[in-house]
Amino acid sequence: MQKSDLFQFVCESAKQAALLSTAADTLEWDERTGMPHSAGDYRAEQVSYLRGLAHQKLTDGRYRESLQELLEQISDETASIPFAITISKLHRDLQRNTKLTTQLVEQMAASTVRGQQQWDAARKSNRFCDFKRILNEIIQLKRESAELLRQGTEKNCYEALLDEYEPNATIEQIDQLFSALRPPLVDLIQRIQSASKRPDPTLFRRNLSLEKQKQLSVHVAEAIGFDFKRGRLDETSHPFCTTLGPNDCRILTRYDQNNLGTGLFGTIHEAGHGMYEQGLPEESFGLPLGSYASLGIHESQSRMWENQVGRSAAFWRWITPKLQDLFPKQYANVGEQEFYFAANEVEPSLIRVEADEATYNLHIIIRYDLEKQLINGDLEVDDLPDAWNLRYEQDLGVKVQQDRDGVLQDVHWSAGLFGYFPTYTIGNLIAAQLFSKAEESIDHIDKQFSRGNFQELLNWNRIAIHRHGQSMNSDEIVREATGNELSTDFLVNYLRAKLEALYQL
Amino acid sequence: MQKSDLFQFVCESAKQAALLSTAADTLEWDERTGMPHSAGDYRAEQVSYLRGLAHQKLTDGRYRESLQELLEQISDETASIPFAITISKLHRDLQRNTKLTTQLVEQMAASTVRGQQQWDAARKSNRFCDFKRILNEIIQLKRESAELLRQGTEKNCYEALLDEYEPNATIEQIDQLFSALRPPLVDLIQRIQSASKRPDPTLFRRNLSLEKQKQLSVHVAEAIGFDFKRGRLDETSHPFCTTLGPNDCRILTRYDQNNLGTGLFGTIHEAGHGMYEQGLPEESFGLPLGSYASLGIHESQSRMWENQVGRSAAFWRWITPKLQDLFPKQYANVGEQEFYFAANEVEPSLIRVEADEATYNLHIIIRYDLEKQLINGDLEVDDLPDAWNLRYEQDLGVKVQQDRDGVLQDVHWSAGLFGYFPTYTIGNLIAAQLFSKAEESIDHIDKQFSRGNFQELLNWNRIAIHRHGQSMNSDEIVREATGNELSTDFLVNYLRAKLEALYQL
Repeated sequence: MQKSDLFQFVCESAKQAALLSTAADTLEWDERTGMPHSAGDYRAEQVSYLRGLAHQKLTDGRYRESLQELLEQISDETASIPFAITISKLHRDLQRNTKLTTQLVEQMAASTVRGQQQWDAARKSNRFCDFKRILNEIIQLKRESAELLRQGTEKNCYEALLDEYEPNATIEQIDQLFSALRPPLVDLIQRIQSASKRPDPTLFRRNLSLEKQKQLSVHVAEAIGFDFKRGRLDETSHPFCTTLGPNDCRILTRYDQNNLGTGLFGTIHEAGHGMYEQGLPEESFGLPLGSYASLGIHESQSRMWENQVGRSAAFWRWITPKLQDLFPKQYANVGEQEFYFAANEVEPSLIRVEADEATYNLHIIIRYDLEKQLINGDLEVDDLPDAWNLRYEQDLGVKVQQDRDGVLQDVHWSAGLFGYFPTYTIGNLIAAQLFSKAEESIDHIDKQFSRGNFQELLNWNRIAIHRHGQSMNSDEIVREATGNELSTDFLVNYLRAKLEALYQL
Repeated sequence: MQKSDLFQFVCESAKQAALLSTAADTLEWDERTGMPHSAGDYRAEQVSYLRGLAHQKLTDGRYRESLQELLEQISDETASIPFAITISKLHRDLQRNTKLTTQLVEQMAASTVRGQQQWDAARKSNRFCDFKRILNEIIQLKRESAELLRQGTEKNCYEALLDEYEPNATIEQIDQLFSALRPPLVDLIQRIQSASKRPDPTLFRRNLSLEKQKQLSVHVAEAIGFDFKRGRLDETSHPFCTTLGPNDCRILTRYDQNNLGTGLFGTIHEAGHGMYEQGLPEESFGLPLGSYASLGIHESQSRMWENQVGRSAAFWRWITPKLQDLFPKQYANVGEQEFYFAANEVEPSLIRVEADEATYNLHIIIRYDLEKQLINGDLEVDDLPDAWNLRYEQDLGVKVQQDRDGVLQDVHWSAGLFGYFPTYTIGNLIAAQLFSKAEESIDHIDKQFSRGNFQELLNWNRIAIHRHGQSMNSDEIVREATGNELSTDFLVNYLRAKLEALYQL
């Protein structure tokens, strides 16, 4: 076969696998938005079958041989052209995929569908014990996968899983970043806790109609640039973003009648993810050039919009009149400065997704440490709640009163996403580093935000990040966009500057 | 291979095909409830790919040979046992499926997804011309399919398509039933039109909050027996019912702020379909014993609940207080008799789904005649609107002012459903015949309805119809349940009795 025919066959196969995976993603989206209560078992069968077919597609003999043959044609000089990037990324995925059996992939898909159902039920009934059995099953399957995936590499089990979300990241690098980040954060948090100036803690916690909160969310998501012709916003119990096709990005948030931040920041965060997905090259959908570079990069987009934008003074200058208008009873007399301060309230707390920017990364470090232990066999599921609660007391000084606010709060482990959590903090670091560069490059960015104009920042990200897909890896993107290696300095400086001013430290 | 292994393999394959088809159905449900505007093309690719895979599954060599081998083991004595019924029905489907190429199945799936999108757009913009090209394409594909399907049979093209919805039905039978039905209907309608007593035409057409109409729909669907743990109710532009798994039946309706009947009867109709699906043997999902017998039988269930129940005096006795309560401003002083009469207003009109019971079948006869002509090549798509409008004037005495209220009103042709329309009238005939028997068998059925108790009628249908799946065909079910061959007498007598009394003819 000609090289071009081989290449076409390989791309066709990858695109067909994407048809199957996005079909499964659609079924999972439906499952998490409104599937009837009793439909779970069959849904698990459907999703598992589709994921199994996609896996077969990407591991079958002809596909493997074609990729191998194409790979041999890549030389050092051609390594950076789209053809070569596509082949080498697909080959990398192939290596991962061939290590896993179709049976294991199907088992994992079925267990994690049931896992999410049982997690949801356990969270509602507030009983970790109802979730234990399936969590154990998922961990066993993940360990089994990890053992297969690490074969022929230097990685340990946890790194083998991490690799799926943050290609080539190592425990050593992450440990280094996290230990550089932790002391200045702890110091900043302590100084804030003894500050005399505090925001009004009740400001965000007024009774606010859900209907109007939804209107607000749509308004903000649209304003920052999420394209509703190519996506939609729904409700679910645990916010997420999923892409069902090149023009079909679904973001999901949740609302709390007594907390403005839950729905608003949840929406901005997911819209940030969504805009990245909407900015990827459409014509390469299902191929590496049309896919996100890493989860750290993905998270940098959601966190930049949520924090560097959504918690900025300029953003609150823009949105305050809207809030006064939507909620006159609650907010007629609240000014932008009060909102801005309340949006940046720092207070050690129990729930990660509602944590402020300073304490957020401490939540991540706890999860990172615990999931490493779970995967490496140093912690039993039975002991997990106690270990969790102990760390929250030690690291954040807060006491977990019920599992719902503790170990049951996150969907990730129920979905088999071990190795995923550290990408949140990596994302925070990247976001701060990128934004510091964007601020330099864009004139009067504050003035733009305060007028509800976010287009230039979106364009900056489109050019620096989105359009590349996987044609550069995470490190290269950061280096090219900012001129620096990834560092904790930008996040620390950004937080110090903002919070020291607000709290008058 | 052992017979039992062969049988297991065949059933496994059919169930896997069902996993794929129900996944495609879920994607189509999503498409018709809230998919983003620009996502249509990729959605068409996904659905078409999944339908193609399901078709492959049900036509591949090993499946074909296994079925053939099993078929040879069925003798006359064993023909009625579940094993034999499963094999012979699957073999029947196989024969249909092998006549069609996978390519044609995929083309059809892709065209009809686009067809429905373009129909929806054309309906909104009220421009038949925007829909012409794709309709032509679909008709060509249907003709091509029909030519392949009729090979080796006595059927003509139209009958070959009809066969998919109403197995073994012939044009001759349908012509016979329709020509027996038409004269008494026309006579009854004419007598009603010159009656001096009329219901209040404004009663159903008051301004009614959509939110409360939705509450009403859920209340009624639940009361008649639709199981919301195993299903849900949503909104769409053209009501339908789709089954996404053994415990996942979705019904969809639409609401009109100025028409109580649109949402209410739409919901009852689709709930009737849904309850049939929910009553099929769960353990045989994806196999003939777990599938509906024919569309005529399916429609008999929706129409029985919509008409024999939902348009009965006893039903309105039950629901009137609820309406007075939900809509005090509009209905505080309206009594059950007024509602009952209004629910049975007979008036030739333009829209099939909102037609009364007497004129409804005239709408069907028009579609039946026109689609026969389209498929047999006796009518061009260009001439369709004129032909449609002419028939409405001749048969119903109403003038079509815009395509939206004429040829663009139904989704069916855009979805490739040619041969489907006559099953509606067959369903009406079966419904009347079944209900006349149910009334004999159930004591005080009226009293039960007037107390909101519909369980006994549902049970009667569960036993007479639902539990059988395809273990009996449509004719056998009717014969066994009613002791008679299908006849137009029951519908005519039922309509005469009810309407002559109401209109005092």
